[in-house]
Amino acid sequence: MTVIDREAHGERQALEVPVVDSPPHAQPVGWHHRHLLDVDTLSWADIELVMRTTDAMREVLARPIAKVPALRGRNVTILFYEASTRTRVSFEVAAKNLSADVVNIAAATSSVTKGESLVDTVRTVEALGAQMLVIRHAVSGAPYLAAEIFSGSVINGGDGWHAHPTQALLDLYTLRSRFPDGSLEGRKVVILGDVLHSRVARSNIWTLTAAGADLWLCGPATLLRGFEAWAGRGAAGGRRFQVTSSIDDALRDADVVMALRIQKERMASGLLPSLREYGARYGLTRARLAGARPDALVLHPGPMNEGVEIAADVAAGAQSLIEEQVRNGVAVRMALLYLLAGTVRP
Amino acid sequence: MTVIDREAHGERQALEVPVVDSPPHAQPVGWHHRHLLDVDTLSWADIELVMRTTDAMREVLARPIAKVPALRGRNVTILFYEASTRTRVSFEVAAKNLSADVVNIAAATSSVTKGESLVDTVRTVEALGAQMLVIRHAVSGAPYLAAEIFSGSVINGGDGWHAHPTQALLDLYTLRSRFPDGSLEGRKVVILGDVLHSRVARSNIWTLTAAGADLWLCGPATLLRGFEAWAGRGAAGGRRFQVTSSIDDALRDADVVMALRIQKERMASGLLPSLREYGARYGLTRARLAGARPDALVLHPGPMNEGVEIAADVAAGAQSLIEEQVRNGVAVRMALLYLLAGTVRP
Amino acid sequence: MTVIDREAHGERQALEVPVVDSPPHAQPVGWHHRHLLDVDTLSWADIELVMRTTDAMREVLARPIAKVPALRGRNVTILFYEASTRTRVSFEVAAKNLSADVVNIAAATSSVTKGESLVDTVRTVEALGAQMLVIRHAVSGAPYLAAEIFSGSVINGGDGWHAHPTQALLDLYTLRSRFPDGSLEGRKVVILGDVLHSRVARSNIWTLTAAGADLWLCGPATLLRGFEAWAGRGAAGGRRFQVTSSIDDALRDADVVMALRIQKERMASGLLPSLREYGARYGLTRARLAGARPDALVLHPGPMNEGVEIAADVAAGAQSLIEEQVRNGVAVRMALLYLLAGTVRP
Repeated sequence: MTVIDREAHGERQALEVPVVDSPPHAQPVGWHHRHLLDVDTLSWADIELVMRTTDAMREVLARPIAKVPALRGRNVTILFYEASTRTRVSFEVAAKNLSADVVNIAAATSSVTKGESLVDTVRTVEALGAQMLVIRHAVSGAPYLAAEIFSGSVINGGDGWHAHPTQALLDLYTLRSRFPDGSLEGRKVVILGDVLHSRVARSNIWTLTAAGADLWLCGPATLLRGFEAWAGRGAAGGRRFQVTSSIDDALRDADVVMALRIQKERMASGLLPSLREYGARYGLTRARLAGARPDALVLHPGPMNEGVEIAADVAAGAQSLIEEQVRNGVAVRMALLYLLAGTVRP
Repeated sequence: MTVIDREAHGERQALEVPVVDSPPHAQPVGWHHRHLLDVDTLSWADIELVMRTTDAMREVLARPIAKVPALRGRNVTILFYEASTRTRVSFEVAAKNLSADVVNIAAATSSVTKGESLVDTVRTVEALGAQMLVIRHAVSGAPYLAAEIFSGSVINGGDGWHAHPTQALLDLYTLRSRFPDGSLEGRKVVILGDVLHSRVARSNIWTLTAAGADLWLCGPATLLRGFEAWAGRGAAGGRRFQVTSSIDDALRDADVVMALRIQKERMASGLLPSLREYGARYGLTRARLAGARPDALVLHPGPMNEGVEIAADVAAGAQSLIEEQVRNGVAVRMALLYLLAGTVRP
Repeated sequence: MTVIDREAHGERQALEVPVVDSPPHAQPVGWHHRHLLDVDTLSWADIELVMRTTDAMREVLARPIAKVPALRGRNVTILFYEASTRTRVSFEVAAKNLSADVVNIAAATSSVTKGESLVDTVRTVEALGAQMLVIRHAVSGAPYLAAEIFSGSVINGGDGWHAHPTQALLDLYTLRSRFPDGSLEGRKVVILGDVLHSRVARSNIWTLTAAGADLWLCGPATLLRGFEAWAGRGAAGGRRFQVTSSIDDALRDADVVMALRIQKERMASGLLPSLREYGARYGLTRARLAGARPDALVLHPGPMNEGVEIAADVAAGAQSLIEEQVRNGVAVRMALLYLLAGTVRP
């Protein structure tokens, strides 16, 4: 263990960074969660530990051979019930960088289509040797069910509209690395788009408010339903964010704008106008971005519908951190695999 | 080589267990089959050797890093013409645990759909570097054709209705581990369900009768066609099993019940009543299981249609060995890959 | 580095063979291309270097453990927008033999179907860790676009009708290994079939004419359109090949016949007669092959439609090099990955 000084939440603390080359169970690092199902059970100290461990992983990624033997011989099974490239590959690369053995199961093309229940699939996957299970599922809560029966660690790779904790942690890491003091305290952060159906938004609300951001949710009123009430309850619990359908109000002097992906399949629901109309009213264009601070940062969880929720020149522009989000995604997932693995005897 | 004592088939023998950490061709272990196409060409001594080697592999699986370098650098290609999760992943994990390089080819999404013949595909796969080929195919006999032209080892991962030898060997291993003397001699074993279309049943008939079990096949008469005659011929050859459509007769005092998966696609054939009616008449429920011995063991090759051929509470109950079957499946496949690899110069 | 003597292009030269066990950037080998997009930018010296490096890789493939640590820890991402078995697996095995980490992305089942642009996908794949990118795409030129934005090396795994450089290099390697002096100078080589839609033909025209072959293109006139004019321009540039619809003229005294795959989907275009009629007029049968030299060599890029563009007995006959093409394909791709990796700091 090495000891570094770091400003964290305004206080000066002596914090430790794990030496991530060694197997994780060899050293206590202060992490006690066996699963990562959402961010809402993480303390701020937990989040800080993820951030510091990610720093260590970025150092690994910068080496000529970006590989450590920390999880050698561990079986990381990636069980995805929804199509995905970036998240699936991000976990796969993260696990391989830690020297784990990776098993990919795309449930759409697997026995799962033969009608097997999630419980049976999880039991089977464990009996097949899975020690860490990354699961993505269209049904909110599915990873919680998996965690009840799986002996190893479960990581939620996205469940329904509910949560996408690794995305929220990589977004937080990406933003912190761009502010001089690593703090989001008082920074105006806007989440823009189809908040209603977004697991990315739900997990980000938690971490960004925990980080002290001045958080705004913005989109068509139909896609913000229920969040007014949540904002009210949140305020009672010390977490403050606000909700608006006015994109001008939202973007004014914003430090950060996170555009959400529009799921074309939502059109059928009648909740969204046409893509063209949505883009005209809420698309993040260069003109609109001009309303924010001059150096405002732009995020998007990907994959993008360019010309709909975000203009191509904004996505590729100097203020965009979109590729850095993807890059940090690998490092954050390495950190999480490492920390979680330390809680389970291999 | 280490020497252990073991009760086998009622006789006390001094048997050797391979030291499976080393490459297999370095030591003669008494295995002479280049391919595993079915169980019917295995002598009892062969089967015993598979069982003992599986013991060694279970010891490997219990290590903190469940990995040996035995097949390092060997190319194991898994060529599956039918969708599968458990069998495909089981072979993949088994091969990776032996440090082999694994290539997965899901034929449905491959050039095979461009009309290439099986012979050309097998020749191509060999030229691409495959040294061991695991093949699953909807056509009975396909692995035999592959074995005629492939220079390395072919393992049948299931062909049509014909054979599923690794399933039969893992079932045998699982049962032996549960009987005090490791012997099935005289144990009443019931295979229940759609025997007609089941490669699992056909391979299990061979190994279970070889092990001396008192084997019963039970299901609707339409799904037992031809097995009466086989039972008659088998008796002449010293292999005895019987056939009945009475589930009460079959389950009475049974030591083991193996429920088979109902293939929903068989409905179209007119051979099966509705799923509901099948479940009502032949589903393995707790009430029916009460007719067997109190500690009767329950098997299912998976994936299950819970509520059809097996009730959820039976599948998850204390008598169920279903997860242990999956777990042993990895160990048995490690053993088979190891033994077969020893017959071929790499 | 070791030094060997080799006849090359009729001149006796002292040439060096890379010691391919070590990481490639440790030694200068005279290779300066960061990408392999087509063969038309390769000098003859480049092609010779690929051939010699392939010799070294064949030596690796002949070892008991056919694996070198040269690319350990490198991320080779295989991004295929078209279904493929042999080319995808060939690259995968080649990369694994060099100890690289391989990520497979079948774009048809990936986020790409969510409407992400090629540019965004390539940027994402790089941010996910890809250091070498093998891309196959239905659109001619797609790999060139990828190369403009990708920081590592791009290898064209086949783009539309345009180019398939690794296929042309493996075909050249395969032929050279069969002629006593390793030279194709003056050898009559026939490319037979649907030349119009063939990226294999286009890349082979370049390498075979560069090697000094007497090249003939043969097929129905509708499938040779535009090649007459190319042949004319080529002659001006010192590259000579001719075009004919007479299969008798083409095959007469030929040293090599390369049959191209008929894409059944071309039928719809009206450019091809029925498969039966095509086979009757241009299929490579034993009778037709009798018109070539007695020891004429037969190639096919695979997968084959046996009985259409090539008869089964010709494909499996003594003159056929089809399996050797596949075998050499792995070695050539190992050589190319090795050479390209040397141009990029890892």
